[in-house]
Amino acid sequence: MPTTLGELARLVGGDLRGEANIPLIGAATTDVARNGEVTLAERPDRARGLTASLASAVIAAPNVDCGGKPSIVVADVHAAFATAVRHFHPPRVPVRVGVSPQAFVSPSAKLSRNVEVHPGATIGEDVTIGAHTTIHSGVRLMPGCVIGAGVTIFPNAVLYENTRVGDRVVIHAGAIIGAHGFGYRQVDGRHLLSAQLGNVELAADVEVGAGTTIDRGTYGPTVIGEGTKIDNLVMIAHNCRLGRHNLICSQVGIAGSTTTGDYVVMAGQVGVRDHVHIGDRAVLCSKAGVSNDVEAGAEMLGAPAAPLRQAKLQMAAVAKLPEMRRQFRILQRQIEELRGEVADDGDDLSTDKAA
Amino acid sequence: MPTTLGELARLVGGDLRGEANIPLIGAATTDVARNGEVTLAERPDRARGLTASLASAVIAAPNVDCGGKPSIVVADVHAAFATAVRHFHPPRVPVRVGVSPQAFVSPSAKLSRNVEVHPGATIGEDVTIGAHTTIHSGVRLMPGCVIGAGVTIFPNAVLYENTRVGDRVVIHAGAIIGAHGFGYRQVDGRHLLSAQLGNVELAADVEVGAGTTIDRGTYGPTVIGEGTKIDNLVMIAHNCRLGRHNLICSQVGIAGSTTTGDYVVMAGQVGVRDHVHIGDRAVLCSKAGVSNDVEAGAEMLGAPAAPLRQAKLQMAAVAKLPEMRRQFRILQRQIEELRGEVADDGDDLSTDKAA
Amino acid sequence: MPTTLGELARLVGGDLRGEANIPLIGAATTDVARNGEVTLAERPDRARGLTASLASAVIAAPNVDCGGKPSIVVADVHAAFATAVRHFHPPRVPVRVGVSPQAFVSPSAKLSRNVEVHPGATIGEDVTIGAHTTIHSGVRLMPGCVIGAGVTIFPNAVLYENTRVGDRVVIHAGAIIGAHGFGYRQVDGRHLLSAQLGNVELAADVEVGAGTTIDRGTYGPTVIGEGTKIDNLVMIAHNCRLGRHNLICSQVGIAGSTTTGDYVVMAGQVGVRDHVHIGDRAVLCSKAGVSNDVEAGAEMLGAPAAPLRQAKLQMAAVAKLPEMRRQFRILQRQIEELRGEVADDGDDLSTDKAA
Repeated sequence: MPTTLGELARLVGGDLRGEANIPLIGAATTDVARNGEVTLAERPDRARGLTASLASAVIAAPNVDCGGKPSIVVADVHAAFATAVRHFHPPRVPVRVGVSPQAFVSPSAKLSRNVEVHPGATIGEDVTIGAHTTIHSGVRLMPGCVIGAGVTIFPNAVLYENTRVGDRVVIHAGAIIGAHGFGYRQVDGRHLLSAQLGNVELAADVEVGAGTTIDRGTYGPTVIGEGTKIDNLVMIAHNCRLGRHNLICSQVGIAGSTTTGDYVVMAGQVGVRDHVHIGDRAVLCSKAGVSNDVEAGAEMLGAPAAPLRQAKLQMAAVAKLPEMRRQFRILQRQIEELRGEVADDGDDLSTDKAA
Repeated sequence: MPTTLGELARLVGGDLRGEANIPLIGAATTDVARNGEVTLAERPDRARGLTASLASAVIAAPNVDCGGKPSIVVADVHAAFATAVRHFHPPRVPVRVGVSPQAFVSPSAKLSRNVEVHPGATIGEDVTIGAHTTIHSGVRLMPGCVIGAGVTIFPNAVLYENTRVGDRVVIHAGAIIGAHGFGYRQVDGRHLLSAQLGNVELAADVEVGAGTTIDRGTYGPTVIGEGTKIDNLVMIAHNCRLGRHNLICSQVGIAGSTTTGDYVVMAGQVGVRDHVHIGDRAVLCSKAGVSNDVEAGAEMLGAPAAPLRQAKLQMAAVAKLPEMRRQFRILQRQIEELRGEVADDGDDLSTDKAA
Repeated sequence: MPTTLGELARLVGGDLRGEANIPLIGAATTDVARNGEVTLAERPDRARGLTASLASAVIAAPNVDCGGKPSIVVADVHAAFATAVRHFHPPRVPVRVGVSPQAFVSPSAKLSRNVEVHPGATIGEDVTIGAHTTIHSGVRLMPGCVIGAGVTIFPNAVLYENTRVGDRVVIHAGAIIGAHGFGYRQVDGRHLLSAQLGNVELAADVEVGAGTTIDRGTYGPTVIGEGTKIDNLVMIAHNCRLGRHNLICSQVGIAGSTTTGDYVVMAGQVGVRDHVHIGDRAVLCSKAGVSNDVEAGAEMLGAPAAPLRQAKLQMAAVAKLPEMRRQFRILQRQIEELRGEVADDGDDLSTDKAA
């Protein structure tokens, strides 16, 4: 049974602008919304998209001109639209499984109350798990891991021995925490692996993306600070110490022993060399290649990375370089001519110089 | 027992050029083929490799000069050589397991006929699986997934809830489909995750490489169009909509809400920013960094990316830049000299100007 | 109970410099060491870090000035410090599980003596495993794999059919060996997968990092040479043949059929195109984009890659390019002026030229 626009306005706590009895059957973004669906417009520049959209109504911010489309005006558009989406497509309520008898749980593991362990997960010797934590199928917690409360570890993630995970951490599927660091020394022509005695520590509220790898420290921990969020397929090498509330986007690579301050942002495919420090609130733009310390607050672009304004000037100059080369060759010719002419003149006028 | 060249010619349906009774015991590419093996040469420029090759015979295209090596001439060399390889090393016939009693299958899951579910796979609540589909060991299909017919999902791939997979899709080992998008807003100095109410939809004949991650949409689906092939370790972010028959090579990263047309090609390690559109048949060369819309048919190179011809001119100009700097400094000196000389001349001749 | 500095000196076989009865309770690197802990200083430039460190003692190389801190002097600081770390935090002794009855082992698999197979691992048909090899939970060995002796395969790694693994190889968690190569031909507007008849061969002492993918060859093997070490999230495409003792750092991508000599080093995020050869002991610096053969011993930087010295000159020239453009425009103006003046002069003096 459809929901009316009026009912939806009440549900999301917004102001109705249009007829209350318009029937709605779904919620979708403007480009894919169909007739009978409500869409969203959180900024004035979304107005153009509304005109072309098939949506029957809009959840909009107060400053958006909806061009006559029936709307519900709210302060927090994303929160209200999420409520609408959940109303039309209620998310699944996870079935509680407790500790599945089909999981492989060591007798020496200590699980707190309300822990969920799905079938086929492995909980190694001496692992401890805090309350209300969920361990999905295929997760491997190797011996000695210490997992906090309210943690979620999605399927097939692997935590090597002695990994420490703070409260409310989320680790996505296929992430690998605590593998050996890539440190070798050459002896008799062969690469010998360095000591692998450390572990990985994720502070509270850290999130680790799918397929991301974080290697253990050589002697002590590799550390990810509180609230830092890491996207998919990121590589963080041995002995790194990331600060708090960093945002590390997809496919970033951070080499060994590098440290970051708080609120650092690294965009996609950034590479940072080993043993450098990235200061508080620094921003590394996508694909930046950083091989030196970066000051707090700096914004870096390019490979090799330079401060944003400088890098943009360089890139603009490179874009014009082929034209500059053409002009340069013209100048060379002109100077050749000038030198010829001045030399000719000199024959007449400045014989003392030529002497 | 060896196969003779004559028997092999009949097997692959080719024309024999040489003695029929040459015994063959294997098939390998020219650089590694040993005595007694047949190799292949599909283009005239492969002739050089044949001379150095230890192979005893060649499956060759009509326009290849085999330099006297016994050969079998065919129109489709790769098809014929594949037949030869299969003849000498018959591929394994997969053992049929049906739905393994050692798999973890929810009672509410609906499996069509001839579905294979290997030991240790997890099929969540309300999952549906089409006919002749194979789910390998360690695959995790979270609740609500809808899998088509003739699909193969290789070991340890993870599909988050409500992922939709079209017919004949192939998902390689360790791929992660439907993890949370990397979208945050900052509240009181902490990053709060955006809504994660969408899912991922893979259309028919899509292939997803090993370790690749495709994140769910915020409110609706992230979509991969029919026939699009994705290589290993690719990252496709939330809300992306890829068109049909794209080829996305290894380690490409595509940021959130970006869309592509049909037959787009992205080479290895390309990065594309969020909210842009890549037109039909556009080609992004390896390591390109794309931060703007790309027109249909365009070929882009570099970071920041530029149209291919322009980018190559830029790169050539940069390669010559150190030499240009040297010449530039010579010009500067010459102009200084000229200015000096002309100024001297001016003293004599153009006193009206200096006045 | 603490260990005294004197006891520790005897344990690591070093010379005591300071009071023997100083009590020690742990070992940590200088930046994180606390009071009561021993730290390390393997090079003279570590002396500065010691001054700031809270550590109570140092394991130091003979040429390090410890600034008065009690120390133990040894020749091999890392070996001695690793001994100290192990003393204070003894590593776990792995619990031996034998072949777990909760693993999925095909009756046709052949396991040598002292093989460990953890719960939830899958050993396919006709797999053979050498002595003293450990297969962790969730590992999938598909049919026909041949695994050597003394091998360790960490959790959730996947080896497709017929993968061959030499002695003492280490494969980290989530690595995917032997997935299909990314080779297609277009027929009637659809991409058709090329033959996938080959496999992957890892020679003795190879190490493969977490989440790394190595695709099978088209007709024969993709080969990784003896002693080559591969970091996390690396992609090695079909038909590649890597030499011996290479070091391939994180997030490197090597396209199809490329070959390397011995002792090649590729730093993080390097990309190498298909069908090229990288000579012995060549070094590809981080983020290099290599699309041509590289000579033995060459060091390459940049994208497109150039020999190190040349690439650095180019990068330095690009950094100065915006300033060069400004100077260039000044030159242009000066030449305009000169041409004007010389033309004026010419009116007076060189009328024969103008004629």
